[in-house]
Amino acid sequence: MAKNLVIIGGGFAGISVAKKLSSSGFNITIIDKTNHHLFQPLLYQVATAALSPGDIAMPIRAIFSKQKNVEVVLGEVTEVNKDSNRVILKNGSSFPFHYLIVAVGAQYNYFGNDEWKEHAPGLKSLSDALEIRERILLSLEKAEQIIDPQKREKFLTYVVIGGGPTGVEMAGSIAEIAKRSMMRDFRNIKPDETKIYLVEAADGILNGFDEPLPEKGLKTLEEMGVEVILNSPVQDIKENGVQIEGRFIETPNIIWGAGVAASPLIKSLGVKTDRMGRAIVEPDLSIAGHPNIFVAGDAAHVKDKDGNPLPGLAPVALQQGKYLGDLLRKEEKNREPFKYIDKGTMATIGRAKAVADIRGFKFSGFFAWLLWGLIHIFFLIGFRNRFRVFAEWTWHYITFKRGVRLIAKKDEA
Amino acid sequence: MAKNLVIIGGGFAGISVAKKLSSSGFNITIIDKTNHHLFQPLLYQVATAALSPGDIAMPIRAIFSKQKNVEVVLGEVTEVNKDSNRVILKNGSSFPFHYLIVAVGAQYNYFGNDEWKEHAPGLKSLSDALEIRERILLSLEKAEQIIDPQKREKFLTYVVIGGGPTGVEMAGSIAEIAKRSMMRDFRNIKPDETKIYLVEAADGILNGFDEPLPEKGLKTLEEMGVEVILNSPVQDIKENGVQIEGRFIETPNIIWGAGVAASPLIKSLGVKTDRMGRAIVEPDLSIAGHPNIFVAGDAAHVKDKDGNPLPGLAPVALQQGKYLGDLLRKEEKNREPFKYIDKGTMATIGRAKAVADIRGFKFSGFFAWLLWGLIHIFFLIGFRNRFRVFAEWTWHYITFKRGVRLIAKKDEA
Repeated sequence: MAKNLVIIGGGFAGISVAKKLSSSGFNITIIDKTNHHLFQPLLYQVATAALSPGDIAMPIRAIFSKQKNVEVVLGEVTEVNKDSNRVILKNGSSFPFHYLIVAVGAQYNYFGNDEWKEHAPGLKSLSDALEIRERILLSLEKAEQIIDPQKREKFLTYVVIGGGPTGVEMAGSIAEIAKRSMMRDFRNIKPDETKIYLVEAADGILNGFDEPLPEKGLKTLEEMGVEVILNSPVQDIKENGVQIEGRFIETPNIIWGAGVAASPLIKSLGVKTDRMGRAIVEPDLSIAGHPNIFVAGDAAHVKDKDGNPLPGLAPVALQQGKYLGDLLRKEEKNREPFKYIDKGTMATIGRAKAVADIRGFKFSGFFAWLLWGLIHIFFLIGFRNRFRVFAEWTWHYITFKRGVRLIAKKDEA
Repeated sequence: MAKNLVIIGGGFAGISVAKKLSSSGFNITIIDKTNHHLFQPLLYQVATAALSPGDIAMPIRAIFSKQKNVEVVLGEVTEVNKDSNRVILKNGSSFPFHYLIVAVGAQYNYFGNDEWKEHAPGLKSLSDALEIRERILLSLEKAEQIIDPQKREKFLTYVVIGGGPTGVEMAGSIAEIAKRSMMRDFRNIKPDETKIYLVEAADGILNGFDEPLPEKGLKTLEEMGVEVILNSPVQDIKENGVQIEGRFIETPNIIWGAGVAASPLIKSLGVKTDRMGRAIVEPDLSIAGHPNIFVAGDAAHVKDKDGNPLPGLAPVALQQGKYLGDLLRKEEKNREPFKYIDKGTMATIGRAKAVADIRGFKFSGFFAWLLWGLIHIFFLIGFRNRFRVFAEWTWHYITFKRGVRLIAKKDEA
């Protein structure tokens, strides 16, 4: 008899489990709050108008169009009932399961200051990316209409909060727009008026990456004109700027990349969590006492061989997904523990200044950027997306043009 | 001394005037409520998830990047002062002009029933197209989760109001999605459950086109499964459906393509207008008593050689723009009247069923669709867009896939 596998979340972990189980005896239901799988590593490129949403996202049901054992449901899970083995959705419908994989990912955590969210959007979804893109483009347009450089200064100021990979990529990417391509289309504003700040609470950026990456990253950002402010936790965020110790940076352009926390659904699982809200799982990724319920991806706290928790990165989620796919297919009593194989980590800082760390080789520059680009492109699910993104990137690199600088809503100017 | 030319509107008319005046003595300011030029004939393809917004739109300042005599302003004009020769914007700034071209286009007119707008969006801007796309995609997702075909019927029902080219294109395009590509990705809903209605108040569709186009159009729509309801003015539109004589069609999917009217700014010009609100202009497109103020494009009422008003179509706007560019460059006392040369009109009804009418030849089918596609692609401003749209179309045609089926906002399901 076919078994029901319910997967909550159509991200890297969820998708890779389901793909591993094609032509298996499972009836798979994937439930996601959006209708698409998002290639998050490239989301910052949508936010800075280098790529279209359609370049980095694909409808989940299109991914599984030919895989007949997969059903896709657009909806929000509000409860997991571990006793009756059912998930319940916001609209009241419920799905029974033999096995459940909770792969709901992470969100931005404002450390209890949820009112900051409105002024400082995070970068987790397409909506987020489009919101940020619109703010960046509108700020340039507003600045363009103000004759006095002092009065327009704040519109050309950008603050990115959080010195992890996301914050670093956003800051570098904004520096890139502001300093090269887009400015040639404006008549009044000048590139050197742009001020970009990366604000970090700790005393260094790219925490969790090995040297010399953090050092090189810092140097590269500074060369690109980004002012990195360390040891500066955010004290307040208002509509018109960011308050840090001893300084108020006046700007409407604030992007939040700090304080990542697991999706709130994890709380309702009733398992032990770490301080980021991630579920602490068994070596086989199941939750204590329920060998048929698993957590994978950014929402799971999984230890590496040194006892440190694995970071919330795409390769980790992908490997966990594949591991679970194999585990479920075999359905053995004795389960091998999950083991993560680190194939290298990359972060990019602008067009030709990527910093890479692959298997002990540490290199930077154009080559790293190219390599990163190629790796990411081949991760993209679906040939069509790969071709398009590659074409986009090539075009973008050759022409330095920002192809997708659209403000879809009408301005309130 | 350089003269100031202010152009209100970055559509076909406005853009083509400015392009004609590169390397001229004019200082040109283009003011638009959005930051982009929109290729409206393909907007319905964004609404039905065949193209991305970025495929059919380009930032105005990118179009004129190299044309240094053009300044682009993002803003909304609220007043034209014909005595002081100034335009005033919503944000209070004002622009003096020697010459003014009002090319603000058209909007949808709900015949006084503005409350219908919320339930039945029109298709004039990218926001509109994305709104419609989202409603279409969400309706399919909702239907997919309802087991009882009768209960889900309304979600698979679509009503398009207005039998002009826009309505016909939308209805045909929805029929196409529903009946071919997308349905293979769903497990529960079946293509033959889809019901599409095109509602028209008059006794025929494609009014203003010569036979046999209207007849062929009607036949083609019906073959595609669209039910065309003639002689049925809309009596009421609610959130849950459309009321016509003797019938209430229950559906949340309502698209408005009727009642086109000129943009409200025309009223403030204080000129005679026709019943669609278009400015009645002199033979040289200027307004009576002000030979330095012109109206062009969909907002202008211009008579053809038979005394009938020209339709609001792209080729008309383009020719008027070029005419005005020439007129301004020469700055002669004696102005030749504007004369429109009809090179043919096309409307498309789905992938391979276009109905075309070029210079007396009337033909249909795949060839017409291809021709229409090529013509449109070469109208597209900017090589990059042309390449991309061509690539998209080729891919789309070959694979029957809907590449851009994204719902960016989270569902309230």
